[in-house]
Amino acid sequence: MMKKAFVTKEQVESIVKSFPTPFYIYDEKGIVENAKAVYDAFSWNKGFKEYFAVKATPNPVLMDILMKQGCGFDCSSETELMLSEAVGAKGTDIMFSSNDTPPQEFVYADKLGAIINLDDFTHIDFLEKTIGKIPETISCRYNPGGVFTLSNGIMDNPGDSKYGMTKDQLFEAFKILKSKGAKKFGIHAFLASNTVTNEYYPQLAGQLFELAVELQKETGCKVCFINLSGGVGIPYLPDQEPNDIKAIGEGVREQFEKILVPAGMGDLSIFTEMGRFMMGPYGALVTKAIHEKHIYKEYIGVDACAVNLMRPAMYGAYHHITVLGKENDEAICTYDITGSLCENNDKFAIDRKLPKIDKGDYLFIHDAGAHGFSMGYNYNGKLKCAELLLKEDGSVQLIRRAEKPRDYFATFDCLSVSAKLDQIMDR
Amino acid sequence: MMKKAFVTKEQVESIVKSFPTPFYIYDEKGIVENAKAVYDAFSWNKGFKEYFAVKATPNPVLMDILMKQGCGFDCSSETELMLSEAVGAKGTDIMFSSNDTPPQEFVYADKLGAIINLDDFTHIDFLEKTIGKIPETISCRYNPGGVFTLSNGIMDNPGDSKYGMTKDQLFEAFKILKSKGAKKFGIHAFLASNTVTNEYYPQLAGQLFELAVELQKETGCKVCFINLSGGVGIPYLPDQEPNDIKAIGEGVREQFEKILVPAGMGDLSIFTEMGRFMMGPYGALVTKAIHEKHIYKEYIGVDACAVNLMRPAMYGAYHHITVLGKENDEAICTYDITGSLCENNDKFAIDRKLPKIDKGDYLFIHDAGAHGFSMGYNYNGKLKCAELLLKEDGSVQLIRRAEKPRDYFATFDCLSVSAKLDQIMDR
Repeated sequence: MMKKAFVTKEQVESIVKSFPTPFYIYDEKGIVENAKAVYDAFSWNKGFKEYFAVKATPNPVLMDILMKQGCGFDCSSETELMLSEAVGAKGTDIMFSSNDTPPQEFVYADKLGAIINLDDFTHIDFLEKTIGKIPETISCRYNPGGVFTLSNGIMDNPGDSKYGMTKDQLFEAFKILKSKGAKKFGIHAFLASNTVTNEYYPQLAGQLFELAVELQKETGCKVCFINLSGGVGIPYLPDQEPNDIKAIGEGVREQFEKILVPAGMGDLSIFTEMGRFMMGPYGALVTKAIHEKHIYKEYIGVDACAVNLMRPAMYGAYHHITVLGKENDEAICTYDITGSLCENNDKFAIDRKLPKIDKGDYLFIHDAGAHGFSMGYNYNGKLKCAELLLKEDGSVQLIRRAEKPRDYFATFDCLSVSAKLDQIMDR
Repeated sequence: MMKKAFVTKEQVESIVKSFPTPFYIYDEKGIVENAKAVYDAFSWNKGFKEYFAVKATPNPVLMDILMKQGCGFDCSSETELMLSEAVGAKGTDIMFSSNDTPPQEFVYADKLGAIINLDDFTHIDFLEKTIGKIPETISCRYNPGGVFTLSNGIMDNPGDSKYGMTKDQLFEAFKILKSKGAKKFGIHAFLASNTVTNEYYPQLAGQLFELAVELQKETGCKVCFINLSGGVGIPYLPDQEPNDIKAIGEGVREQFEKILVPAGMGDLSIFTEMGRFMMGPYGALVTKAIHEKHIYKEYIGVDACAVNLMRPAMYGAYHHITVLGKENDEAICTYDITGSLCENNDKFAIDRKLPKIDKGDYLFIHDAGAHGFSMGYNYNGKLKCAELLLKEDGSVQLIRRAEKPRDYFATFDCLSVSAKLDQIMDR
């Protein structure tokens, strides 16, 4: 499958007149269409809700677009809760799925009326001591242990992960929570990351539905929702077959009708907490080629670096690159595409076949819409770039300005040297 | 060798009354003594200068301490140049060693009179076009290609790295630079990272000294300095033998006297650009145990996370941990020490043998003084912590305040939702 950039060279040439490279750009049309497809795929479930994983792309304008499509927010920190509140999310529109949680975050989540998803058995006690009660609606995160395998060979090791409760703990937790006043229960599990297969959610759902039936029967707790969490991935490689969300929804429905409906639990709601699937393909990092270098290999130096997108440096992740205006040119060159960090892993691509790149060319780095900007750092004192939105009407809106040195130095305002820094910046 | 924390439990209990965990703390005494030892080890070389790699720990108070010991600064970006200017570094106190350099950074470096270290052959032209001249003093970065091996098995692949010029390019570069007015030349090379062996600098120096003799002879360019760059490491593991900087200095002197003095180049200056060696052991991340979790493994959850120190998550790096107040207790437990990110790699230690940890215990994470805070990000919307200085007189100074939500949201000030965020934060 050919990956196609959602902006043209001409559009970028127009955009850079207002907003210099590098920048992130998001595609409103793609975001909206995909969100509609998600809701359509699960429309058979009356209570279905996607809680967008804010950590993937914590931008209030993008969150607002998703909220208009019916999404809530999966938050894992104070600032994510603040963003959700700021865009108008209320009560059970927010799922607070955190781990190793500081007390003040439970306090804030409770104040907002968010659904709290307890990561650990010990958090029952901690939550009660912290907020003075157990909420009526509560969720628990389950970790089945062992190894989780899908038929295409994808596997993950829940047993080695820090999240969730064991099965015994989960049963015990439900009983204790019930005795402390909880009335509506949920189960949450995350077993594999970025799966590109239609069978992950259905297989996970089957496990959790059976567990729900067993839990409700044994503990008498009313299970009201199953949170399938994230894990539905996107095809970073151009030859990968993308997930078919309609087929995934149908697969979950089959399990639902096989397991929950006969148990009299057909009113149970399905929740998801997708980040990458909701936003990944609809965001890109656009950067300009500013240097070429010919030593033992051929290098193209761009004006973005790992500060803007860390996944290639951190995980060796593949991100497809389109040289704008050269979409149809043959890939006759082999390049390392590098950023300017003093880190040799600061490369957006290694030994990548691409059309001949000239200085001034714009590179469109695909699938950077999730865990892209949000995973940025300021290593080497480099500053983060702006985020732009390509709106459905074709106009472009600044949805986060680029960092300035002043932002980078903000936490030195307790030092006398900050006056000198101000002088330098004001010059 | 036993690793010893430079603060006690009692000191931390006193510090947290003013500055809550997590925080970085730096040891002024250790920094100063080590810097003196570096200058002592190279005192045989009249022009010796250590250019502290600002990227390792970009804090102006720490930079000031090093400057008082005679250090200059190795900068790789605009903000690092600003920090250097703010603490009073002038002219050749600054080495600008960058790669894939944006034009405005060359302009600023030149304005400060910094020594510019050209990463690439094509940068000659680029620099001249950008600043309108070639400076009288200029340095070139060399990449010998191939594989670099030390007798203890450490090896690195300069040929696969994006830095520097080939030998042919270096000779050509010197000739061109000379023809354009350059008068004082330097050579820079970085071949291996964090070497814990006394032979790295001497071996590198030998190579560069021979190159310098050859270059000066063939091009007639006056080689005035050799920049050995960084690469001198620290023992993260408790059983590693630390580098002996005196022995390293002597090893470089032997090469100097064998190669440069006979060639009539005994007035050449040695420069270094160490970061980790100057600061690594003298900074620590102090964090509090706030949760314990018992599932398929035993976990201790702390109030710091990969946002504060990314090396374990990013590189699987080992950082030694001392449980303060339990220095002499037997390591009878095996823990994963986790932060709160929704990333399973957010663990400061995996299967680490430690004394039994109780909630409220303070953990001292060693050797975080370089590439620690500076490599922090804000993933999951988590905020960066404060930096403190333990001064030689025993007092503690705040040298960077902790981030607040307002800092995290600063780049949304172009959006109408920022008023709502302000309201929430002001509450």
